[in-house]
This record gives sequence, structure tokens and C-alpha cells, in this order.
Amino acid sequence: MTSKYERANASDGQSRIPDIVIGRLPIYLRSLKILLSQGQTVTNSQELGDRLGISSAQIRKDLSHFGEFGKQGTGYDVAYLCKQLEKILQVDCIWPVVLVGAGNLGHALASYAGFENRGFRIVGVFDNQPDKIGTHVGSLQVEPLTQLPAHVARHHCRIAILAVPTKAAQNVANLLVEIGIKSILCYAPITLNLPEGIRVEYIDPVIHFQHMTYYLEKDCLKT
Amino acid sequence: MTSKYERANASDGQSRIPDIVIGRLPIYLRSLKILLSQGQTVTNSQELGDRLGISSAQIRKDLSHFGEFGKQGTGYDVAYLCKQLEKILQVDCIWPVVLVGAGNLGHALASYAGFENRGFRIVGVFDNQPDKIGTHVGSLQVEPLTQLPAHVARHHCRIAILAVPTKAAQNVANLLVEIGIKSILCYAPITLNLPEGIRVEYIDPVIHFQHMTYYLEKDCLKT
Repeated sequence: MTSKYERANASDGQSRIPDIVIGRLPIYLRSLKILLSQGQTVTNSQELGDRLGISSAQIRKDLSHFGEFGKQGTGYDVAYLCKQLEKILQVDCIWPVVLVGAGNLGHALASYAGFENRGFRIVGVFDNQPDKIGTHVGSLQVEPLTQLPAHVARHHCRIAILAVPTKAAQNVANLLVEIGIKSILCYAPITLNLPEGIRVEYIDPVIHFQHMTYYLEKDCLKT
Repeated sequence: MTSKYERANASDGQSRIPDIVIGRLPIYLRSLKILLSQGQTVTNSQELGDRLGISSAQIRKDLSHFGEFGKQGTGYDVAYLCKQLEKILQVDCIWPVVLVGAGNLGHALASYAGFENRGFRIVGVFDNQPDKIGTHVGSLQVEPLTQLPAHVARHHCRIAILAVPTKAAQNVANLLVEIGIKSILCYAPITLNLPEGIRVEYIDPVIHFQHMTYYLEKDCLKT
């Protein structure tokens, strides 16, 4: 896909649009889709900002990187802005995702209801524990890690979820990179060491907790 | 705890420091702790920014809300800045957390290694499924929801993790608010409707996926 704005990898330093801006677009999209599901057809940066705790000026500035989406005084057409954000984020399609790790977390993820209608489908679940291979996780059967390269090639997977124990995470991540995975969503509480050009995002509940405790009246235990 | 900066709830519109800035502090803290664990004693906004994909100017501006932490030319003392951020975020202590939902996700969370040394401890696991009550999740025994109010009161819990099925999430959240919970980390793919002053953060893997697909060469399935 070509686009009128620069879709360069942020890590190469050539990106015209700050990565921090890109990271907010999915949050806007999520909020807009909720409005849409509630039957709201028009919104504005003030309303969106109030819902998200982001200033309306920030939202207008973020969106202005990609074009003109609203009209002064009338705001944004919710359905149209959703479609445009889906196009920009390239989620106007279904991305095949492989899931590595068929433990409790893998099971929870395989039955997560929020993927399919937002651009993603888990197409394979992998583990190297003999007692897990062949069992079912959601509608998928757990396959051994040895099957992962062929599976990734066949489905053109570029995205993987890493839901393995911490001590296995780096090795599995290395394998994923070797076989062509470009983006990894990591649930283990570590920081992966991977080559340039590979994008890792972390699911880290503590980041959210620490954001919340800022606002709480202090009532916790001495360490 | 009183502090020299304004620690108002962002939702009341009186916060002096934008919530979006507060949300970045845990990310800085995470990165600094990694540096610390690697034995690095000094860093600067440029290095931190490169690691996080955030501009060094943004980092300096964010931190300047809270005081002077570095010296021109010498940068930040990593251990000192960690301690200060922990103080600001109020995680220089252990917050007791209740976990509701003892399914696959609850099990995964109860054995998550990343809580304790970052300010949090799960002190109770609750479910209303008779076959789950009494079973063990990590070192804790699953208790019925009826025990939740007494437990929250006894442990002075203000934070809860909601790891229940989507259809149960709103009702359980209502109960949590009734019994004094102020901050909820929600894993269900919905948006909760809760009173003013209650803070909810969502763990939403799709937000991360959609951030990653922006940078990928488009190679996905037509919807």
C-alpha cells in the first residue's frame, strides 16, 4: 500500500509522523467504534478528548498528520473517521496471527472475543510441551513448535503473540524473528533483545496499575 | 500524602498535570529499572527517548512537571530517578489487589511474576462458579464473591483486576465500586459504565496490534 504520508519504520529515524502519535490512533479508533455501536453518527475532538483524557487540541493535531477529517463547527462523521483510521492503521482487513504458548494465558487469548472484528485472527497455537500438543485451545489444535515455520510461511503471518513462560521467551522470540515474524506482542515480564526492524509491544498490567496509583489516596503497605 | 504538585483526579478537570503525562511515567520507570538491572548508573533523556520512541524534549518536559532530576551535561542518576518516580506514582510501597475471575486468565495473572517488585500484591481471588471455589490459584484459594466485601475492607483494597467473562463484567464492576474499589484493571473487551471518580484501565491487545500493523507491509486477508 502506498500512502500520501510517510509510512517509515519509526526505528530507522525517518518517520515523518511521531510513533507516539501512531500509538494514539488505535485508542481513537476504539472510542469511535464504541460511539458507532451506540448509534452516534457525529462527534468532535472535544467529546473524544473528554472520553479519553486527552486534550482536543492534541487529537486535532494528531489527526491533521493524515488529512482533513472534520469540518469546523460540525465535527467528525464517526463512521467515516473509523473507516479512515482503519485504512491508516491497515486494519481494514484480517491479519493472521500465531500464538505461541498454550498455557492458561494462551487459552484465555484463544477465546478472546475482541480480535476478529478489529482486524486480527489467531490461525495457529504452538507449544513444545508434549502434554499440550494435540489438545484444543478454542477451535484450534495445539501444534509443536517444529510446525511453526511452515505454518507462518503458509499463512503469511507477520504477527505473533508470545505467551510462554519468562525463561523461554527470548529463545522463542529469536525463532519467530528467524522465520519472518516482524511484530511480537509479548506477555512475559521481560524486555526482549531483538534485531533492528522487529517491533515488540508489551502487555504489562503494572504500567496501568502505576498510572492508577498516582491518583489514589495513599493506603498501601510499607515494603 | 501531600505533594508539591497537584495530585487531583484527572476526571474532575482540575489536574494541573495532563493525565497523558502521568501515563508515560510508568513507562519511563520500567525502562529505568531495566537500565538499573543492567548495572547502568547514569542515563539521559536522549538515551531514554531512543529506547522508548519518544522525543528527548518530551521526556524532559514531562519530568519538569515534578522537579529537577538531572543536571545539564551529566544526565540522570538512574537509581535516584527510579526512586523519585516511584514516589510520584506512589509505588514505593505494596498495594493490595483483589482479582475477580479464576478462569484461565485469572490463573495466568495469579502466577504473573511482575507484580511484587513493582508495587503490587494480589491478596485475594474471587469467583462465583461453584466448581472453582476452594481450588488454588497460585498460592491463594478461590473464595466466593460473597466474601469479597469483607476481604476488600480487611485489606484496605482500592484496586481490583476484572478477569471475568464479558457478560459478567459490568455487574461485577458495579459490585466492586459499591464496596470501595477506586481503580479497576479490566481485561474484558468492553467499556464499563461507572460513576465519576472511578478509574478504569483496559488491557486491550488489539490496541497494540493496531499500532504494529501501521508499520507492516500490507499482507492480510480481505474482510
